[in-house]
Amino acid sequence: MSAGRFGFELIRTDGSARLGRIRTAHGSVDTPAFMPVATQGTVKSLTPADLTAAGAQIVLANTYHLLLRPGHELVRDLGGLHRFMGWDGPILTDSGGFQVFSLAKLRRIAEDGVEFRSHVDGSLRTLTPESVVAVQHALGVDVLHPLDECLAHPATAAETERSLALTLRWLHRAVAAHRAGGAPGALFGIVQGGTSHAMRRRAVEETCALDLPGYAIGGLAVGEPKPALYDIAELVASGLPIDRPRYLMGVGKPTDLVEAVARGVDLFDCVLPTRNARNGQAFTPDGPLNISNARFTRDGTPLDSACPCEACQGFSRAYLRHLFAARELLAYRLLTLHNLTFYLGLMREMREAIARGGFSSLRSRVLERYGTDAAEAEAEAG
Amino acid sequence: MSAGRFGFELIRTDGSARLGRIRTAHGSVDTPAFMPVATQGTVKSLTPADLTAAGAQIVLANTYHLLLRPGHELVRDLGGLHRFMGWDGPILTDSGGFQVFSLAKLRRIAEDGVEFRSHVDGSLRTLTPESVVAVQHALGVDVLHPLDECLAHPATAAETERSLALTLRWLHRAVAAHRAGGAPGALFGIVQGGTSHAMRRRAVEETCALDLPGYAIGGLAVGEPKPALYDIAELVASGLPIDRPRYLMGVGKPTDLVEAVARGVDLFDCVLPTRNARNGQAFTPDGPLNISNARFTRDGTPLDSACPCEACQGFSRAYLRHLFAARELLAYRLLTLHNLTFYLGLMREMREAIARGGFSSLRSRVLERYGTDAAEAEAEAG
Repeated sequence: MSAGRFGFELIRTDGSARLGRIRTAHGSVDTPAFMPVATQGTVKSLTPADLTAAGAQIVLANTYHLLLRPGHELVRDLGGLHRFMGWDGPILTDSGGFQVFSLAKLRRIAEDGVEFRSHVDGSLRTLTPESVVAVQHALGVDVLHPLDECLAHPATAAETERSLALTLRWLHRAVAAHRAGGAPGALFGIVQGGTSHAMRRRAVEETCALDLPGYAIGGLAVGEPKPALYDIAELVASGLPIDRPRYLMGVGKPTDLVEAVARGVDLFDCVLPTRNARNGQAFTPDGPLNISNARFTRDGTPLDSACPCEACQGFSRAYLRHLFAARELLAYRLLTLHNLTFYLGLMREMREAIARGGFSSLRSRVLERYGTDAAEAEAEAG
Repeated sequence: MSAGRFGFELIRTDGSARLGRIRTAHGSVDTPAFMPVATQGTVKSLTPADLTAAGAQIVLANTYHLLLRPGHELVRDLGGLHRFMGWDGPILTDSGGFQVFSLAKLRRIAEDGVEFRSHVDGSLRTLTPESVVAVQHALGVDVLHPLDECLAHPATAAETERSLALTLRWLHRAVAAHRAGGAPGALFGIVQGGTSHAMRRRAVEETCALDLPGYAIGGLAVGEPKPALYDIAELVASGLPIDRPRYLMGVGKPTDLVEAVARGVDLFDCVLPTRNARNGQAFTPDGPLNISNARFTRDGTPLDSACPCEACQGFSRAYLRHLFAARELLAYRLLTLHNLTFYLGLMREMREAIARGGFSSLRSRVLERYGTDAAEAEAEAG
């Protein structure tokens, strides 16, 4: 199928971890890569220049949100999403399916598509595999995704089988619509199948039969136990073609990123670094901290003295704590910038480690700092 | 009295409008100047680098807010307000009086000072002329203000006289405390006296008798009619020594700035450009606009194509309207940056006009664009 100037090069491996590069019409992405989430066409509180400074090479935007507000036709008429949001680099959009199932109301799933009420204005909307592709064509993004059913966890074998079959039928329609549309972006397949090995194997086989330019692993990080997440990610990744990028949707914590890269995943998105920033959590090489913690009241040191971000170069923990306590907008901006700088720096460290064949020692180090219940408890408690 | 390295140079006049330069230990300020308001030690949503890019040379911080949170002693222990908030330029603090009278509860005014309950935590606090100076010494600011009583409008002649007498007694105590404190900042006098010419004349005479490094005009923009504001500003400014800067507190709209400069005022602060930005109002050379107006839905042009700010260089009105409708933090940041760039650009235009003897034509142009009820109605209605 036509994928415009999209391409993927696998540069080297270290165990199952992969160093690669995605090419798009809007520039390249070194993988493993993390995509900051620009839900409504903006990474909350940051400008595109901030994203570049933080090390971002690609961002994710949400089809569901943009279709409801400001509307994909408006974005198309104003020159596409890149121009609208002022981001020249690659943009990936999800299918909208996850938001329909998590945010919208009164949804009805039928063979043709899904009916729901907008969480913005209550209007009744329908998404079909064809319309979801058309929306993403209007946005003019570099990587598109097909409408899928995002099954809640837990699900019975019968539910999982029915849902997967629907997702696969929708995928065929999306591929046909994308071919017919003649737009340059690359349509990835989404591998569903819940926590069932058999269903996941079937999903890999039937999705890969379509020879798509990349593959997403969907339906994880939806409530299943962490071992199941890693187990299914490994199972799916090992079944995907080596010459296509693999994207684990909606994951995750620093430990999840490292564990998934160790299992052959290339691409990630998650709201964690940005959303948690707005709740006061800052990621550091020594583990997460919550800036509202009283121990930072008179702490004149930066969040991380080795971090190159604007927050760490200019401000103390005491000042950031003050801003956060006073609910100042600058607090959210500086913590968001810092957390993305941390995440994107971690991805760069992973790429460098794979390049020199030292991924396993980096993995151990990250797990040591971020893998303990203690570190998570600290972050939660603040 | 000791004012450290503070000084003022009057460079030239054009009618009553004055071109000058304030020197402080943290750099110079070209006047007429506008001070962005960093209420809690941050101009909401912006970094110090943003302020410099917008053209700011000095900022105002609120003594009242900082004393309550994070506390002036904490700021002092962390190296002073400049270091705490990461701003190397001059900082001016108000007296806290205005906030005590507008934000705090259960206040009691006595000869010694004022008692109030913190709006942050409900604690009972007392401010005296001496403690207000000590707070500002702890903050380490370049320009300090004495505790004053900010009289509500309207007030009777007897109330005005009683209040002014108290403010003058407090001023003497503040001057003594500042001398005793040995800190380098410059303590300005605040001229009160309501809308009474007689009281204002007495205030000018008694305040100037103390030979202070600068003078603030207080008690205006508190509900009096606009002609009274201009009238009193003119009366006071004309009575102040020509070799000291004159600061009109809490003013104002673009027309107010131009009208006050025409009457000999040098220094301004106001929350209008920053607060209104968060309500969607953007200032442009053609008058104000409200970005939430439906006519901007598909407007692909910037707020002001001649404006050098990041908002105008990178984004369309349609995008800003989308961000504002979606309550995205970036909307507040970009509109704030734009409005300050506009205000600070207007001040620069005024300085350039005075330098070439063309202030009156600039004044006419600003009044034409910003002085009509129509423009204000547009801004209000959005």
